[in-house]
Amino acid sequence: MRIAVLNGPNLNLLGEREPEIYGRTSLKELEAMVRAEAGRLGVTLDWLQTNHEGALVEAVQGLRGRADGALINAAALSHTSLALRDALLAVQIPFVEVHLSNIFAREPERRQSRIADLATGIIAGFGPQSYLLGLNAIVQRLRAA
Amino acid sequence: MRIAVLNGPNLNLLGEREPEIYGRTSLKELEAMVRAEAGRLGVTLDWLQTNHEGALVEAVQGLRGRADGALINAAALSHTSLALRDALLAVQIPFVEVHLSNIFAREPERRQSRIADLATGIIAGFGPQSYLLGLNAIVQRLRAA
Amino acid sequence: MRIAVLNGPNLNLLGEREPEIYGRTSLKELEAMVRAEAGRLGVTLDWLQTNHEGALVEAVQGLRGRADGALINAAALSHTSLALRDALLAVQIPFVEVHLSNIFAREPERRQSRIADLATGIIAGFGPQSYLLGLNAIVQRLRAA
Amino acid sequence: MRIAVLNGPNLNLLGEREPEIYGRTSLKELEAMVRAEAGRLGVTLDWLQTNHEGALVEAVQGLRGRADGALINAAALSHTSLALRDALLAVQIPFVEVHLSNIFAREPERRQSRIADLATGIIAGFGPQSYLLGLNAIVQRLRAA
Amino acid sequence: MRIAVLNGPNLNLLGEREPEIYGRTSLKELEAMVRAEAGRLGVTLDWLQTNHEGALVEAVQGLRGRADGALINAAALSHTSLALRDALLAVQIPFVEVHLSNIFAREPERRQSRIADLATGIIAGFGPQSYLLGLNAIVQRLRAA
Amino acid sequence: MRIAVLNGPNLNLLGEREPEIYGRTSLKELEAMVRAEAGRLGVTLDWLQTNHEGALVEAVQGLRGRADGALINAAALSHTSLALRDALLAVQIPFVEVHLSNIFAREPERRQSRIADLATGIIAGFGPQSYLLGLNAIVQRLRAA
Amino acid sequence: MRIAVLNGPNLNLLGEREPEIYGRTSLKELEAMVRAEAGRLGVTLDWLQTNHEGALVEAVQGLRGRADGALINAAALSHTSLALRDALLAVQIPFVEVHLSNIFAREPERRQSRIADLATGIIAGFGPQSYLLGLNAIVQRLRAA
Amino acid sequence: MRIAVLNGPNLNLLGEREPEIYGRTSLKELEAMVRAEAGRLGVTLDWLQTNHEGALVEAVQGLRGRADGALINAAALSHTSLALRDALLAVQIPFVEVHLSNIFAREPERRQSRIADLATGIIAGFGPQSYLLGLNAIVQRLRAA
Amino acid sequence: MRIAVLNGPNLNLLGEREPEIYGRTSLKELEAMVRAEAGRLGVTLDWLQTNHEGALVEAVQGLRGRADGALINAAALSHTSLALRDALLAVQIPFVEVHLSNIFAREPERRQSRIADLATGIIAGFGPQSYLLGLNAIVQRLRAA
Amino acid sequence: MRIAVLNGPNLNLLGEREPEIYGRTSLKELEAMVRAEAGRLGVTLDWLQTNHEGALVEAVQGLRGRADGALINAAALSHTSLALRDALLAVQIPFVEVHLSNIFAREPERRQSRIADLATGIIAGFGPQSYLLGLNAIVQRLRAA
Amino acid sequence: MRIAVLNGPNLNLLGEREPEIYGRTSLKELEAMVRAEAGRLGVTLDWLQTNHEGALVEAVQGLRGRADGALINAAALSHTSLALRDALLAVQIPFVEVHLSNIFAREPERRQSRIADLATGIIAGFGPQSYLLGLNAIVQRLRAA
Amino acid sequence: MRIAVLNGPNLNLLGEREPEIYGRTSLKELEAMVRAEAGRLGVTLDWLQTNHEGALVEAVQGLRGRADGALINAAALSHTSLALRDALLAVQIPFVEVHLSNIFAREPERRQSRIADLATGIIAGFGPQSYLLGLNAIVQRLRAA
Repeated sequence: MRIAVLNGPNLNLLGEREPEIYGRTSLKELEAMVRAEAGRLGVTLDWLQTNHEGALVEAVQGLRGRADGALINAAALSHTSLALRDALLAVQIPFVEVHLSNIFAREPERRQSRIADLATGIIAGFGPQSYLLGLNAIVQRLRAA
Repeated sequence: MRIAVLNGPNLNLLGEREPEIYGRTSLKELEAMVRAEAGRLGVTLDWLQTNHEGALVEAVQGLRGRADGALINAAALSHTSLALRDALLAVQIPFVEVHLSNIFAREPERRQSRIADLATGIIAGFGPQSYLLGLNAIVQRLRAA
Repeated sequence: MRIAVLNGPNLNLLGEREPEIYGRTSLKELEAMVRAEAGRLGVTLDWLQTNHEGALVEAVQGLRGRADGALINAAALSHTSLALRDALLAVQIPFVEVHLSNIFAREPERRQSRIADLATGIIAGFGPQSYLLGLNAIVQRLRAA
Repeated sequence: MRIAVLNGPNLNLLGEREPEIYGRTSLKELEAMVRAEAGRLGVTLDWLQTNHEGALVEAVQGLRGRADGALINAAALSHTSLALRDALLAVQIPFVEVHLSNIFAREPERRQSRIADLATGIIAGFGPQSYLLGLNAIVQRLRAA
Repeated sequence: MRIAVLNGPNLNLLGEREPEIYGRTSLKELEAMVRAEAGRLGVTLDWLQTNHEGALVEAVQGLRGRADGALINAAALSHTSLALRDALLAVQIPFVEVHLSNIFAREPERRQSRIADLATGIIAGFGPQSYLLGLNAIVQRLRAA
Repeated sequence: MRIAVLNGPNLNLLGEREPEIYGRTSLKELEAMVRAEAGRLGVTLDWLQTNHEGALVEAVQGLRGRADGALINAAALSHTSLALRDALLAVQIPFVEVHLSNIFAREPERRQSRIADLATGIIAGFGPQSYLLGLNAIVQRLRAA
Repeated sequence: MRIAVLNGPNLNLLGEREPEIYGRTSLKELEAMVRAEAGRLGVTLDWLQTNHEGALVEAVQGLRGRADGALINAAALSHTSLALRDALLAVQIPFVEVHLSNIFAREPERRQSRIADLATGIIAGFGPQSYLLGLNAIVQRLRAA
Repeated sequence: MRIAVLNGPNLNLLGEREPEIYGRTSLKELEAMVRAEAGRLGVTLDWLQTNHEGALVEAVQGLRGRADGALINAAALSHTSLALRDALLAVQIPFVEVHLSNIFAREPERRQSRIADLATGIIAGFGPQSYLLGLNAIVQRLRAA
Repeated sequence: MRIAVLNGPNLNLLGEREPEIYGRTSLKELEAMVRAEAGRLGVTLDWLQTNHEGALVEAVQGLRGRADGALINAAALSHTSLALRDALLAVQIPFVEVHLSNIFAREPERRQSRIADLATGIIAGFGPQSYLLGLNAIVQRLRAA
Repeated sequence: MRIAVLNGPNLNLLGEREPEIYGRTSLKELEAMVRAEAGRLGVTLDWLQTNHEGALVEAVQGLRGRADGALINAAALSHTSLALRDALLAVQIPFVEVHLSNIFAREPERRQSRIADLATGIIAGFGPQSYLLGLNAIVQRLRAA
Repeated sequence: MRIAVLNGPNLNLLGEREPEIYGRTSLKELEAMVRAEAGRLGVTLDWLQTNHEGALVEAVQGLRGRADGALINAAALSHTSLALRDALLAVQIPFVEVHLSNIFAREPERRQSRIADLATGIIAGFGPQSYLLGLNAIVQRLRAA
Repeated sequence: MRIAVLNGPNLNLLGEREPEIYGRTSLKELEAMVRAEAGRLGVTLDWLQTNHEGALVEAVQGLRGRADGALINAAALSHTSLALRDALLAVQIPFVEVHLSNIFAREPERRQSRIADLATGIIAGFGPQSYLLGLNAIVQRLRAA
């Protein structure tokens, strides 16, 4: 089983960026934590971070035939990108939307997501643990299917 | 460590009610699953379901000094009850908001929650697994604190 | 054939409460009128009035397997209760929404109903006669089915 | 006693038009059913269908001194015609607003009516039975007055 | 002269709940202060607190013939309960709406009240003193009538 | 100089219809008053009343080359008819919008007009005098041009 | 008979200010035109222009017992001043709202007036003629009363 | 193959009406151009223009069994007529919505259409060419079906 | 202790202006009542009424160092004046917002206040008694501080 | 004559992506169809597809001096990209907006376009034929200019 | 060259009022800084501060023929005064809108200005430096003209 | 001291693009002007223009540790990019938002900015001078800090 983890804009600054909101774990450390959990679960992991909407769209397009499921933290693009929505509609792959922060406790424009209704489910607010919970969720969902 | 699980209106019908949305697991079976996971995690579990807003408010009030954290699936009351919000503001206990269905893929009035911004985090869309993920999340959060 | 009639908050004050809007018939008298019509139609009648949302939710839940159809005048809860809507979605019983007053000639918040789209139909504005018309409608609908 | 039944645009297609919404009874058959009920009730019936707003306005104007009450199913014009509202304000005749379909279960623009607040009451969702119930309601109302 | 004081959800936690907003006086202490003032004014006091909308509705219904006026702090229900509004419309008793906090300095949903237009007047923001001022206001109003 | 006066739906009921709003002068009497004033001003008058939007549209179309200016009281169609607006855009004739009642003191939908911005000016609220003032205004405007 | 004409902010610049909208007549010339018409009608005229909301409020207050009617062109304050509305509510004097320009052909905030519903009627769009028509209207209305 | 072309209000003025928006081709010339193209495509053409909503509704009703497809330029009625929408829902005939002008570059109320979602497609902004393109589109669509 | 009472536009007409809303006490009588209560409480009173926003702004500015607290009834300016809000933000003096009428039972624009969130509290609906209650409230608040 | 065809995000998936909405023709096949039609019309064709907003902006910038007109299907970016709008404002080249699907029959955010008012015209809903119609339209428009 | 600097309500409190927002420089000191810069630039400076809308309107009116350009910080009136807008429309003098604070980082009502679209440009957020930058901007603009 | 100047989409077309709005200075010329001013002020300048949101996000990310402050003209992205906002939140560098045109005199979507509240201040409407003023502002601010 192969799971892709797609990270959107500014997540490359994780750990340095607004740590009171996003925590002090860097993206490298987060990746290591998720890879460790993937190893524990016996699944292969693809990891991507990009600040470019077009690149994220193409990463989603590339999931077809290459991944069984995905964790997607599209960051700011969750709230603005219709192109990302279209890519997800096109590839029809099961995915979990994850957020480090509790987006429902933030500004109004972060409280709605343009992709959440396409997701299997959403997990937000647990910092790095959001990813670990999401990975378990998608793996269990795929194994149950 | 003691965790309370509070379930709102109509969840007593789980398994029978709109199974294409909520699945076929009954509330009894769900409770058993969550209790098993609690056993595995070594935490004590309190379980409540009520169809009454006032009773839910009082259950939240009763958490003070009796529970370390909570899972709350307030169902329809998530979207309408300001009294529930006030109770949560009053007791200041860490909790995870859980939903069986992906509330973001449903009618507009179910896409906003009156308590989500008070939660540690939110997990929605994974059926019974939402509870298991939520239990792990709150326990890990409390142990890390 | 068994028909339940469910009455929401403040209908116990019928006849005394704002008679220029709701008329001078008491709830007791209304019940007698509806029971007489039920007798004439040869159907058994269950009658309930409650001021508690939770109790109304549970009354709806209890209709499964016990009633063939219902008349529901949820009064103020028609306009505010998502839990009532969920209960009706869960039990999937045919019902007619009835109102004594013409809710479309009143304040804006009374002009929309959270359950009307789930009803077979709606009858409003005829005072006690709304119930009698509603009873005939539901019985005829059930007999035709 | 003389009752007018006024039908608005596209009701001449009844039975052929979107039968899953409006049923399979033709307008002719509906008229026959209502005339039969009128006979049973001992009232004279005037019946009109028009696709023209101006004609409907004039039909309403013509009710003064000629009818004691009316059933009005203005169809699409219920939701858009201020001229129809003005005509009803002018003639001040008691009427019941009837709809074959449950307009509250349809598109938003069909959920509000520009004339409902002027009606004695509203009956919607029962197919042809809406007319029969409405006829009984208006006759009973007039006899009680 | 008999005055009822009705307190809504979560006011039983007064003194413990968000003291920076609601102050440190407990509900018991508040009741004692109000009873003392009632004694000074020579009026009899009925005191109720409930977390249940239905119970509050019934308490309002019960005022007819039993109280001359009321102080009502419906807390969260002030902003959401149409059933409470209907009960107040039904009993037509003079009342003062009181709030401990300045509801106009809080979240938008707390800045409008579903019952304020039915009140004689409103007093908000003075902590326990809101009740004392309200008691004086209603007594003086009733004595002047 | 030739002036057309165009009257919209329900103005044929003038004098009988809601006299507390529209006054007791009949349309015939109003026409006579306006014709007398036209005589005094030395202008020829065309007078039309219709309840049909299409007929009003065609009456406006017919003004080209036949009238120098117009008084238009489109009644309910003032507020709803885009086709009337298009006809006025097409013929480009100077006109005054007149209303018997003060439309700004009525329901919200009557407070905006779909043609007012195309008019030379608007006169509302003076009963029959609105027409006389409007006739003087358009004649003076045309003579000054 | 004594009529007051009250002019609001920036009308002192008339003739110089945006002549394509307001025309080239100065306020002095406008006053002369209106005084001439007043002479013709045999009524005494009071004339005021002020750029101060407070002064306009007090001018309205001063109408009581001193004027029989008024023409009011409150200019920008028509659209923003609730204090002006209160003054007009207080003095209860018949008045005509006049505007030089067609306010319905301008920016949205100029299309609604905070005092129009209190006026006998409104006349807008005819330049200086708006005042002359308004004067005739109010005099005729007062003589008919 | 038989195609109907239905033209709404004010299109009879084409060529004279606002030529900077609608061009200088008259309706007669437009009809000739479309008939020529129909001849080239080997299809029979029915052509109608009406200023009356009711007549347009009935023209749409009459398409059943008489035409294989339609071009519809409902002009102002595109944006306001729910009765036209109902007629199109009833007859279920494939049609193309055409507009001479680019309705998306005009006033807000012209930017939405009440029938566009029922059309096979929409073509707007090309003047008379919109009709020719639309005719080709509907013929090709019908031949491909 | 020195308390200022600031009264906004049109309150100089008190007793004459809309007595069914504001009562029959004149401003002079109101001032006497408040001065008497101030005497009873042992506080010095400054009293001001103005119809000018600028004067009210400067009166608020002048409170610094001269008054310990204030009662403010800004009347119409409560709902429209951002300059008044800025003055109150600048001087940071404790004040009570008072209204004679129940502003929550009036037109929508009177139901929100631009200064209420800056006040210690608000008292509305008790006629002259609003001022007396407000005076007691502010004095007690200042003595408790 | 040189025409550019610009395709936005996810159109590279054409034929695979949501075929019930976008059809089964691949982008390669679509390009071949459009190139064939271009050959028939004797015009040179530039063809581009990109998933990157920045690349689309630069492609539009590059049209100046290189193309005589364009077909633009900006897909999701039609509805969100102000930068694309700015590029089109900058180059001032005639273009036709094309869409494969009927965007007016889809979700609300797809029913408005940020570039449609800048286009010569819009063609939507005809699948690949939208491009062929659009090509004919722009070529004819350019030849007529 | 003569430049006027107009300051609106509450700016006389500068330095004392909310220093965390507006800074600690007094209006006198600000005036001295701006006068020094004016001297350096060789321009004459008129300086005004007023708390009265009417006075500000008249100050703007007085600019005609007396000043070549202006800096305007209308403070709260920037957001509410249509009369100020009208005065600026009337005098047609080039001006720069300046604000000490960053109005876009404040409450919603401060984020829009009723005069900004009439200004040459806007400078906000730099404290006293906003004025110095604005003075340089207007002088340079006038010298370049 | 090192200042970065970041320019968003379509600014590479400066001088050619809509010169009536943006002026005739090219981006090269603008850069030369700003570099000259930087030289005069003794600060080092980094200059970037990009049409890609992702590149602009990364340019902002790259400011940390490399620049002391920035001028940002994000053009269309100012109004739409939440990712840009997140980058600015992450790097926490002082910056001035500059615009060549007066964005408050343009379409509604250009009147709000998604980054303005994060800026030290905003300068708009002065063409190339906006940059020079902005450079002086940020340098002075940094030197004062």
